[in-house]
Amino acid sequence: MKFKLEAEDKNSKARAGEITTDHGVIKTPIFMPVGTAGSVKAVHQHELSNDIKAQIILGNTYHLYLRPGLETLQLAGGLHKFNGWNGPLLTDSGGYQVYSLSGVRKIKEEGVTFRSHIDGSKHLFTPESVMDTQRIIGADIIMAFDECTPYPCEYGYARRSMEMTHRWLKRCCERFDTTEPIYGFDQTLFPIIQGSVYKDLRKQSAEMIASFEREGNAIGGLSVGEPAEEMYEMTEIVCDILPKDKPRYLMGVGTPINLLENIALGIDMFDCVMPTRNARNGMLFTKNGIINIRNERWKNDFSPIEEDSDLFADRNYTKAYLRHLAHSKEILGAQIATLHNLNFYLWLVNEAREKIISGEFTEWKNKMVIQLAQRL
Amino acid sequence: MKFKLEAEDKNSKARAGEITTDHGVIKTPIFMPVGTAGSVKAVHQHELSNDIKAQIILGNTYHLYLRPGLETLQLAGGLHKFNGWNGPLLTDSGGYQVYSLSGVRKIKEEGVTFRSHIDGSKHLFTPESVMDTQRIIGADIIMAFDECTPYPCEYGYARRSMEMTHRWLKRCCERFDTTEPIYGFDQTLFPIIQGSVYKDLRKQSAEMIASFEREGNAIGGLSVGEPAEEMYEMTEIVCDILPKDKPRYLMGVGTPINLLENIALGIDMFDCVMPTRNARNGMLFTKNGIINIRNERWKNDFSPIEEDSDLFADRNYTKAYLRHLAHSKEILGAQIATLHNLNFYLWLVNEAREKIISGEFTEWKNKMVIQLAQRL
Ligand SMILES: [Zn+2]
Ligand SMILES: [Zn+2]
Repeated sequence: MKFKLEAEDKNSKARAGEITTDHGVIKTPIFMPVGTAGSVKAVHQHELSNDIKAQIILGNTYHLYLRPGLETLQLAGGLHKFNGWNGPLLTDSGGYQVYSLSGVRKIKEEGVTFRSHIDGSKHLFTPESVMDTQRIIGADIIMAFDECTPYPCEYGYARRSMEMTHRWLKRCCERFDTTEPIYGFDQTLFPIIQGSVYKDLRKQSAEMIASFEREGNAIGGLSVGEPAEEMYEMTEIVCDILPKDKPRYLMGVGTPINLLENIALGIDMFDCVMPTRNARNGMLFTKNGIINIRNERWKNDFSPIEEDSDLFADRNYTKAYLRHLAHSKEILGAQIATLHNLNFYLWLVNEAREKIISGEFTEWKNKMVIQLAQRL
Repeated sequence: MKFKLEAEDKNSKARAGEITTDHGVIKTPIFMPVGTAGSVKAVHQHELSNDIKAQIILGNTYHLYLRPGLETLQLAGGLHKFNGWNGPLLTDSGGYQVYSLSGVRKIKEEGVTFRSHIDGSKHLFTPESVMDTQRIIGADIIMAFDECTPYPCEYGYARRSMEMTHRWLKRCCERFDTTEPIYGFDQTLFPIIQGSVYKDLRKQSAEMIASFEREGNAIGGLSVGEPAEEMYEMTEIVCDILPKDKPRYLMGVGTPINLLENIALGIDMFDCVMPTRNARNGMLFTKNGIINIRNERWKNDFSPIEEDSDLFADRNYTKAYLRHLAHSKEILGAQIATLHNLNFYLWLVNEAREKIISGEFTEWKNKMVIQLAQRL
């Protein structure tokens, strides 16, 4: 993996860059659609590449490990071959899902034992096993195994958890650096900063994580319920510590406004289920604000979802039709709304990128965060 | 509407023809995908026209009347404008859904009172109101209001019901013939033959329906649970009575084998929820037989869903991936399987058409019905 810093905003810490992987180039800042179980829900792979122009998508280690399972993924030749997505791919470590989806789990120094949310079967994830698992899934960028603390989280627990995450990172690196990619293309490991919402812990964690000198760095444990201002504070503290010449990935964030504010603080990569999950509930993000397409207001609005959009779904379907599909629980409604939201998120980060390069980012961002907050 | 009979098979009663509507041409025999509530479930409109090459789709009067409702449909300028499908469109009369979906309903000479399956509200459908409703929905081909008898059905009830359907038809025609299309394009009304599985009733009904001399004729009340042989017997009786120079539509049928056998008896048009509904349950129809994609057998089968298909989804996705999506209840699984099944149904009727024209239909059909019955 290579990262090239292309432009820096004068009035903020925003950056534009370019990540090169063996599966293609990613222009940053970027948003990565989440393909939990190897599918970005309700979107065809060719729609990802041709219609919404996704540059990289995510897979979830926890989900893929349980289903289809490692045997199938390895026989397929990795997730790229399995699902037919040929662009860059990132897998999370599975940690977050183990904590949030698995009812019964036990965190020990060795790793985490948990029960599958599908069939109740018992499993153990360790830093080493998670590296092996992500080797088999075969993402271009793989994530360290960490503990993602909840919010709120007591200082003592946050500190002890962070320290364990650091010890786990050492084990992740040792395993990763002594194993090889399976499918002939390069893989890289991103470590994850933790520390809850405590400045000193975040600072300490950022320094520790930076000292591992991996090719990119990630920030975890945010967007878990804390106020946005606390999130931005943490992002700023760690971005000021992380090396400039490596991409910075803020995990699980967030709203369109969260993206812009964090881009302004120096973040390059984002992922979130919000555009896809909220789409399935009828919430559309647009440049003029948020639409709840289920509202009575759209019942007889036969204007296109977004007239001047480059997305076929925005131009070809009307708000009234999408409202009808949402009320009728039609699958096509999920398909259209998901395409819309992902296209909007990718438009937003691309627009941010262009504004950074042209030197207009801060002005544009300040205008946009007001517009984006409106409810239409 | 115009119908041109293009070719007749020498060894069966199969025919190839061409229906011309103001929204385009339909090459028969044809299968019409069902778009119950104004959406063929899990399929984009451009996929219908470009990928699976649907020539005509269905809408359901019962569903559309309840949701989005006539006010919205009329304000939109009809269903074509509302859902963005620009090809030929057919609406059923709503009768079948009133009987099958609405728990509480009362059939009287005047019409049928029923309660909405959505909100329990009370409604009355009469032959006249259903004509008006279908004028507003704006399909190219609209259906008479009939009573679709269940199977089994006592002879006395079947006869009385058929006679009422005939009286209702007279009222439908009177209303239809004294009203105008709303949106500037032509609409035509197809009457429906009933008579359960009683030969004399079917014969009587076919003669009565033919005597109305509408532009096309339909056969209802079949594929409701009777053995296939009884269905074929009824089709044959009525096709021998119906005029040759008008299209014949067998409503709600059926399996790929049902289609071929009924084409051999002189049917030109079909609709059925089977390819779409079964797709969502993981059942794929292929030229070599039926696949239950959920089976263990496909777990590590990384061959394309159908290698030599003209459909992107068949070539780009593997059986193992589709199996995974089905097990994971991923929406994309429904999207892929639905496209596959509809594409197969449309391939099948088009292939039948070509074989009729080239004079090889019967031989081909006899081979296909064996192949299609296999479980892979
Ligand atoms: Zn999120
Ligand atoms: Zn059917």
